[in-house]
Amino acid sequence: MPYELYYWPSIQGRGEFIRLALEEAGAAYVDVARESGGMPKMMKLMQDRGLATPPYAPPILKSGKLVIAQTANILLYLGPRHDLVPKAEAGRLWAHQLQLTIADLVKEAHDTHHPVASGLYYDEQKKEAKKATEQFLDTRAPKYLGYFERLLDRKNARFLIGGRVTYPDLSLFQIVEGMTYAFPNAMKKLARRHPKVMAHAERIAARPRIKAYLASDRRIPFNEDGIFRHYPELDAR
Amino acid sequence: MPYELYYWPSIQGRGEFIRLALEEAGAAYVDVARESGGMPKMMKLMQDRGLATPPYAPPILKSGKLVIAQTANILLYLGPRHDLVPKAEAGRLWAHQLQLTIADLVKEAHDTHHPVASGLYYDEQKKEAKKATEQFLDTRAPKYLGYFERLLDRKNARFLIGGRVTYPDLSLFQIVEGMTYAFPNAMKKLARRHPKVMAHAERIAARPRIKAYLASDRRIPFNEDGIFRHYPELDAR
Repeated sequence: MPYELYYWPSIQGRGEFIRLALEEAGAAYVDVARESGGMPKMMKLMQDRGLATPPYAPPILKSGKLVIAQTANILLYLGPRHDLVPKAEAGRLWAHQLQLTIADLVKEAHDTHHPVASGLYYDEQKKEAKKATEQFLDTRAPKYLGYFERLLDRKNARFLIGGRVTYPDLSLFQIVEGMTYAFPNAMKKLARRHPKVMAHAERIAARPRIKAYLASDRRIPFNEDGIFRHYPELDAR
Repeated sequence: MPYELYYWPSIQGRGEFIRLALEEAGAAYVDVARESGGMPKMMKLMQDRGLATPPYAPPILKSGKLVIAQTANILLYLGPRHDLVPKAEAGRLWAHQLQLTIADLVKEAHDTHHPVASGLYYDEQKKEAKKATEQFLDTRAPKYLGYFERLLDRKNARFLIGGRVTYPDLSLFQIVEGMTYAFPNAMKKLARRHPKVMAHAERIAARPRIKAYLASDRRIPFNEDGIFRHYPELDAR
């Protein structure tokens, strides 16, 4: 039985971190809300008061009888099933630690355009967004990227953990993709300072299944409803 | 060998979610940075480029040779060792899902006083903080608390998962404590609407080990350097 992924059908968003893992694994899955009649099915799942494990929000993964939510938690589940984490507990914890650090970065990247409230429009917090984005690009993004640069600067580190791809590698790739879309000017400068992170992202993009996925219409283009939004007024000059 | 917890010594912060689990478990641990000479020891650990699993930020738990960071990841590790999660995989995923949802709430609660940037002072973003807090108290806090209220409104739900305490129960208690400290006026209203969440918090506070911990000087008082800060101008009137 294929996995069922439930996520907003018009954005990459947090669902993309799951999609990338499923694609790299070559796993059979249905992106439910993108199918005909899928959105009502997702809304029904989200409002199902009879569920043993009701999700607070998408992404949600159905795997047989299991209903799992929270991006990093879904990856925690998928990792060992698709050889996307080390076998030993210490390695799994390390992978999850990296994923949760990436999740923190994702939230901060999102909040650049929604610093006051996710429930208000961007236009209602444009001035604050300008200030927040400056801070993010000047201090936070370099701190996170510098952290990953140091990890990838270790001996023979083609990937974050040893010599093989794990799920945080796919997520770090998505960060680079998103930042490059949202902040092309700022990323030019950041890319020069983080060559290992950039080379790592190219390495991920070149993996056969990821490459095929990115070229397919299963990959939703970036847009101004997602986490990474390109508002030229927020980017560095 | 006791666990070593590394966290900022003057705040509850994210370290408190770990402290509560260790205390409920009756586990032997050293709160390293609160010991004499502990802060330099923590800074050394954070800057140790030779670590196999370098943390991005505290809290950090040392358990034998393991060095684990990220709050929810540390709880993922501690849970099964101290009977603070169900034994089956499905139950463990459910506990972690709840923990990650609580982590999202914690971040949003923190950002009420630091909506523009965590690196700027509160005084530099007071106006934005007022706007962000209003939104948080009006829409986000009720959404999260409503979610937990529904979980605790299920048949015989003394705790979030079945009839026994798991680590997200301790974290949810900490949320109620923090919100009550930061927003006493707003919480009066929220408490009326979420009686199960409030009763649950009292149930946790009354557990012998938690009660002893809260009365001890191991529990750092809330203050205006932590996640939950009481700025009267931000609270509801």
